Amino acid sequence: MTRYALEIEYDGAGFVGWQFQTSGVSVQQVLEAAASRLASAITHAAGRTDAGVHAEAQVVGLDLDRDIAPERLLAALNFHLRPHRVAVRRAALAPAGWNARLAATGRAYRYLILNRRAPPALLAGRVWHVERPLDHDAMHRAAQSLLGRHDFTSFRAAACQAASPLRTLDRLDVRRDGELVVIEAAARSFLHHQVRNLVGTLVQVGQGRWAPTRPAAILAARDRREAGPTAPPEGLTLVGVRYATDPFAGVSAR
Amino acid sequence: MTRYALEIEYDGAGFVGWQFQTSGVSVQQVLEAAASRLASAITHAAGRTDAGVHAEAQVVGLDLDRDIAPERLLAALNFHLRPHRVAVRRAALAPAGWNARLAATGRAYRYLILNRRAPPALLAGRVWHVERPLDHDAMHRAAQSLLGRHDFTSFRAAACQAASPLRTLDRLDVRRDGELVVIEAAARSFLHHQVRNLVGTLVQVGQGRWAPTRPAAILAARDRREAGPTAPPEGLTLVGVRYATDPFAGVSAR
Repeated sequence: MTRYALEIEYDGAGFVGWQFQTSGVSVQQVLEAAASRLASAITHAAGRTDAGVHAEAQVVGLDLDRDIAPERLLAALNFHLRPHRVAVRRAALAPAGWNARLAATGRAYRYLILNRRAPPALLAGRVWHVERPLDHDAMHRAAQSLLGRHDFTSFRAAACQAASPLRTLDRLDVRRDGELVVIEAAARSFLHHQVRNLVGTLVQVGQGRWAPTRPAAILAARDRREAGPTAPPEGLTLVGVRYATDPFAGVSAR
Repeated sequence: MTRYALEIEYDGAGFVGWQFQTSGVSVQQVLEAAASRLASAITHAAGRTDAGVHAEAQVVGLDLDRDIAPERLLAALNFHLRPHRVAVRRAALAPAGWNARLAATGRAYRYLILNRRAPPALLAGRVWHVERPLDHDAMHRAAQSLLGRHDFTSFRAAACQAASPLRTLDRLDVRRDGELVVIEAAARSFLHHQVRNLVGTLVQVGQGRWAPTRPAAILAARDRREAGPTAPPEGLTLVGVRYATDPFAGVSAR
């Protein structure tokens, strides 16, 4: 058995999420099907993205019952992945004892809101369309009050299986780029729906319904009913995973 | 009859282009169908984009047999345009005597090349995938030799119906943004396939097949057979149209 590290990109539309499910096609399923054309294959991912959530650089551990040079593996996987909207950007032999999920020391997500009257045409399926003007400065101020190590029960999905609701939020930046409001979040790890629940709450602030001081009070309440609605999945993209030792050191995607 | 100016965005995939055709669904067709829910309607566009070509800000003249406030027109058109990937970003009453095509004094296009080994997943249908590394500096140098007023016969489609092959190319910039090579072109007007034929030629230079001096020689030859192949439509986006008097002055898309 050889373990490979893969950096993969996917369009979450049309997938039930990263993980195998009986209800539809998952990213894991099409990736393992592609790898199975080469040898017996098992995968695990750094972040188990939900249905509709995209990835620019998800990291996957692939256990393969055969030795293949990483460059050949990349080409073969991309060939067999067509026509699915999943692509392998980089492939490398995994360091000894490495696990894509357990070794990860940081995850970064980006959430995009299209804040204009017209619905998205070019960005359909990639953004949350919010027509009412958003005060991104107020959202950013509110976001800063949530940084650090806290009990994030108020922003955690009922179905969340994590042992503890304690997480350390390292970054939650809100900025405007023309018609887009861009939210960037980083932490060692996130609770289930945590980013989308944070975004749903910040949008209440951005629309002026809630004061920028309220999200900190919601956090302190440790009660999911206090927070805003869960933002839709299509605005969310996993943009990167960090490791103490980069498994792709020296490997270019170009 | 009232003439409106519309700024529209569309995803060119699935359309036979801007203009009505018997072979499939055009952007003009779905826009006129939406407007016809309100009153008799006729449209004309600043740029007749080809099948698969996108627009961020195409400008359309809409003649409507009824008076509607522009903000109400925008909302009604976007409502009736669903679920097509066409959206009206801005709407205004057209200035007297204004015509979207004839009054235009400049068109700007952007062409995106995804230059990496992995095929596009998130940018599928929006980029030309070129695996072989491109020297974007060589492409930019070659592009600068094509600026100005010239006979662009070498870069003109056989089907081009323009009376003259003379055009003034104001801008043709090539730069790299990570895995993307971005080409930005601007002129008062372009010949049919001119941008895509220029891109096809610059890619030959970027791959090292042709010297950066060759595109100028191709231009001077006035022979389509000298130039490179036509780049595929999906990498091309009409990003803006300029007018001596901005028909949307004071109208925000937000």
